[in-house]
Amino acid sequence: MKTKRPLILVTNDDGITAPGIAALIDVVKTLGDVVIVAPDKPQSGMGHAITINSTLRIEKVNFYGVLAEYSCSGTPVDCVKIAINKILKRKPDLVVSGINHGSNMSINVIYSGTMSAAVEGAIESVPSIGFSLLNESIDADFSAAKKMVKTIASQVLKNGLPLGVCLNVNIPKAKTDEIKGIKVCRQAKANWVEELDERKDPSGKPYFWLTGKFENYDKGKKDTDVWALENYYVSIVPTQFDMTAHDSIKVINKWKF
Amino acid sequence: MKTKRPLILVTNDDGITAPGIAALIDVVKTLGDVVIVAPDKPQSGMGHAITINSTLRIEKVNFYGVLAEYSCSGTPVDCVKIAINKILKRKPDLVVSGINHGSNMSINVIYSGTMSAAVEGAIESVPSIGFSLLNESIDADFSAAKKMVKTIASQVLKNGLPLGVCLNVNIPKAKTDEIKGIKVCRQAKANWVEELDERKDPSGKPYFWLTGKFENYDKGKKDTDVWALENYYVSIVPTQFDMTAHDSIKVINKWKF
Repeated sequence: MKTKRPLILVTNDDGITAPGIAALIDVVKTLGDVVIVAPDKPQSGMGHAITINSTLRIEKVNFYGVLAEYSCSGTPVDCVKIAINKILKRKPDLVVSGINHGSNMSINVIYSGTMSAAVEGAIESVPSIGFSLLNESIDADFSAAKKMVKTIASQVLKNGLPLGVCLNVNIPKAKTDEIKGIKVCRQAKANWVEELDERKDPSGKPYFWLTGKFENYDKGKKDTDVWALENYYVSIVPTQFDMTAHDSIKVINKWKF
Repeated sequence: MKTKRPLILVTNDDGITAPGIAALIDVVKTLGDVVIVAPDKPQSGMGHAITINSTLRIEKVNFYGVLAEYSCSGTPVDCVKIAINKILKRKPDLVVSGINHGSNMSINVIYSGTMSAAVEGAIESVPSIGFSLLNESIDADFSAAKKMVKTIASQVLKNGLPLGVCLNVNIPKAKTDEIKGIKVCRQAKANWVEELDERKDPSGKPYFWLTGKFENYDKGKKDTDVWALENYYVSIVPTQFDMTAHDSIKVINKWKF
């Protein structure tokens, strides 16, 4: 009989003091023993960056009263690496990342520090989930999201995940009773059409803020995460780190080199 | 009759003054009009990071005598975004990134700034290639790599690439006549087993360098990039940004939520 409580690693990209990670910890500490290794500052948009040209620091903290908690000077992926290879005595049973303040649907998965931490969990062969709420406000209401974390994390602890696959879970900005259900989806084809917001510094030299407009090329496609979220479903996209375009191998093989 | 010379965007992750980008420019300026937007400092391991919590700067420079050249304070992906959305008057016909000083085979694709720039090119629907040489030395011999850049970039300009796909090209550390040919491959299943190199700062507090050992779980598999490179072939892995694990959708759909 398996009586050992699951060991759950928690991280995020908004930093260890963000309300989203507090909401996530609140739920997963009811499911197992929790260790937190999370960035000491916001790391949004860090994608799968790792720290190789400078050094890393970790600090023991005690914000949440769980088994162990550390803030880390690195990226979300660094947090997962340092947790699994240095801090934890055994591989965790689950890695959860988030709850992100803002969407990681569609192409955002590739820029997202939250999701890259989950992907790194999968690279380490640990069942992993990234959670994001479509609400960027510091005062966001996480109650519906917390219910979904409980449901989905429980299922992953029970069923495991296919090897090499993690889950990208996005939760619409809605009250619990407005959410219609959960849809397993594919990532919608989309892109950010950048607008570089040009400004002048006090000495008159230009600088830029990266901003842009989200452009969905899969409008109306019901099997996509964007459609699900627009229609008040929670979206789950199974996400892999094998980036090989397998179908294109035969195409390129026809070339005369 | 198409007489217009192709417009080629060049970037990298080792920085605009790295010997590898010089070698790349040397070749592609014979194939078209070249615009360079490359990081002003090393950006290795930056993955698909973008700069959203701080500002970006670009500086006009004149190292290489091509159509236009800029150094950029951001990541490789920022460089592609700022080039396509701000600097270039039309979409380029080709994005090339590299030549990276060191391997981007297998799982390295996901941590690599070089490859993330090429992936961003594909997200922008531009045929894109990342080139890497398995030699990290500042004095690396790029002559075999330059020959391969010419062959492969010419083929991509002629044939285009499937939409949503870029190429991850790795070149073994070898003389031109030692290279046996080109193999179109899949990304080998592998991982870095991290060893966190712990040191003490002058005040006795610990800090860490992220380091590790590359572990190939696809040893001997002839359809992988690692096998090709170990056997003196150039590897080409068609690489996509759709991270959906399509086969897992039906697996997760069986769960009872």
